[in-house]
Amino acid sequence: MIDADALVIGAGPAGLWQVFECGLLGLRCVIVDVLPAAGGQCVELYADKTIHDLPGAPGLSGRALTERLLEQIHPFAPTWHLGEQVTALAQREDGRFELGTSAGHRFDAACVFIAAGVGAFLPRRLSVEGLEAFEGGPGTDPTRHAVFHHVLPEAEAAGRDVVVVGGEDAALRQVVALAHSPTPPARLTLLHRRDKFDADDPSLSTALAELRASGRVEVIAGQPTGLVVEDGALRGLNVATADERDLTLPLQRLAVCLGLSPKLGPIADWGLAMARKQLVVDTARFETSVPGIHAVGDVVTYPGKRKLILSAFHEATLAAFAAAERLRGGPVPLEYTTSSRTLQSRLGHTG
Amino acid sequence: MIDADALVIGAGPAGLWQVFECGLLGLRCVIVDVLPAAGGQCVELYADKTIHDLPGAPGLSGRALTERLLEQIHPFAPTWHLGEQVTALAQREDGRFELGTSAGHRFDAACVFIAAGVGAFLPRRLSVEGLEAFEGGPGTDPTRHAVFHHVLPEAEAAGRDVVVVGGEDAALRQVVALAHSPTPPARLTLLHRRDKFDADDPSLSTALAELRASGRVEVIAGQPTGLVVEDGALRGLNVATADERDLTLPLQRLAVCLGLSPKLGPIADWGLAMARKQLVVDTARFETSVPGIHAVGDVVTYPGKRKLILSAFHEATLAAFAAAERLRGGPVPLEYTTSSRTLQSRLGHTG
Repeated sequence: MIDADALVIGAGPAGLWQVFECGLLGLRCVIVDVLPAAGGQCVELYADKTIHDLPGAPGLSGRALTERLLEQIHPFAPTWHLGEQVTALAQREDGRFELGTSAGHRFDAACVFIAAGVGAFLPRRLSVEGLEAFEGGPGTDPTRHAVFHHVLPEAEAAGRDVVVVGGEDAALRQVVALAHSPTPPARLTLLHRRDKFDADDPSLSTALAELRASGRVEVIAGQPTGLVVEDGALRGLNVATADERDLTLPLQRLAVCLGLSPKLGPIADWGLAMARKQLVVDTARFETSVPGIHAVGDVVTYPGKRKLILSAFHEATLAAFAAAERLRGGPVPLEYTTSSRTLQSRLGHTG
Repeated sequence: MIDADALVIGAGPAGLWQVFECGLLGLRCVIVDVLPAAGGQCVELYADKTIHDLPGAPGLSGRALTERLLEQIHPFAPTWHLGEQVTALAQREDGRFELGTSAGHRFDAACVFIAAGVGAFLPRRLSVEGLEAFEGGPGTDPTRHAVFHHVLPEAEAAGRDVVVVGGEDAALRQVVALAHSPTPPARLTLLHRRDKFDADDPSLSTALAELRASGRVEVIAGQPTGLVVEDGALRGLNVATADERDLTLPLQRLAVCLGLSPKLGPIADWGLAMARKQLVVDTARFETSVPGIHAVGDVVTYPGKRKLILSAFHEATLAAFAAAERLRGGPVPLEYTTSSRTLQSRLGHTG
């Protein structure tokens, strides 16, 4: 059980700023995100696009904003749990919260901030009968783990027959990375429903064309129809091709790279008041229907709400003050970073 | 009469961001501030101090933030009226607003945004009988104008006997500037109630000490008691010195440099609902009790309000959307600067 003042769900800009404002008020945070890195939509949806409406910070890309925010929260040293989804939340009799993640970690937090954006970015799944048995994860046999979503680690692919499924950036990026790995697969096949690819990043299309020309990657246009299993191990994928043939692609590893899709997930099951799939909060404390559980950013709704990053910053700030007042049982005065020695010291600026 | 979609009162960070958000929504703004330059408190109170809680923009000084915001609103080319105070506001029968300033300009605006911060920064005044007659301004005889507040233009001081009143940065800055002018005064006297000065900027104290040592500035410790007027012109200031003598300082120009003090001023007389000297607004539209008059930043109050710059940015954004919806008579969809051609074109980013 990991203790914290505050547990922040989501490491997009709203969650990162939540950690900052909590830190200014002396609250120590754990931050959990299902993605393997911070940034949320900023990194998944517009990492290289320019955001023009950040006051005082014109022309930052989604990635650059994330880097700035990480730099800003650095003094507050949150405990990171990336690549994990918060799956369980329950309030104890003493008012504190117990939370659990998909990775089996458990937390005990005085308050919770839900900054889950449009939801957890989870990989889109491939619908083939029997696939779940090879997906790995809690409660499964690790020796049977042969199907990977979104990213297939190089070590898993090395020297093996690998099939990558998908037709957009995620799949092309995976194929190019594996082909150029120092320990490449023995055989690398890209399976997509048609022989036409749709990458936002044009350099990926160029790289794929070169790999096809040199024979290092084979492309099959078709749809998976079933698995070939031998002695309990995944050994092949049956495919109906676009030109109406049936064939079997031999494989030891299958990478399903169909992109990420946001899903609100377990949050919807915690009994919090919702409207149109969003958490209902007030505009003074940005608190959900459960005192002590705050919510900020794109996951919330209130009269006038606009899904803008600068609004999330404001929401996280007022939520932090409300949480600090609840924990201290009294008012928390406003201090300014330009003049307060307390705040400057928490930020690591002394003297 | 100058026409505008929106008139913004106050050119601090809240007012500047109001212009930005109005600009994104296609509303053309006039911006009015009593100070001679943009920045408000950022420039008057912490120009050189570091603001640590601007998300994505760590380590900016008040001055640097102002410069960034000015850069960001540049594409929207607001009409500037600096050094003027909005003194009159009235709503017409057709719902538009007529406003007038201390400089005699008149405006016709569809909506109004009050971003007046802690109030208009007005110079502190010297209480000496008869002084008003020499202060200049509308309706007075310009040939009698001999008393200047906060700043005395070099051309007014050139070759004349000048007395500067004050003991802090504003007074010392004025004395140093005049002494080093290419056209300095004939005689330059600094009058302060005691022979001890209280400048935040230590270089001003050093510069004053040098000027005293070289005889270019005389310092008198004392209090003004009355004016010497000859033929309707100001010719001297009677002073009771700190060591209990009476003397007369001959002068043709008097610079009252007692610093600036914020005053809400005429805004308090416009019939808008107020609480504790602040404008009451809702948190969906950031609108005052008069539809079409919005208010944002430190001048407003609502449940949970914290006087933070990042909150002003959020408030100005929702206020802009509310104003745009009122003017268009329907919903204004949210677009993103990362992807919207319309917004990018308004920002001057084409292609």
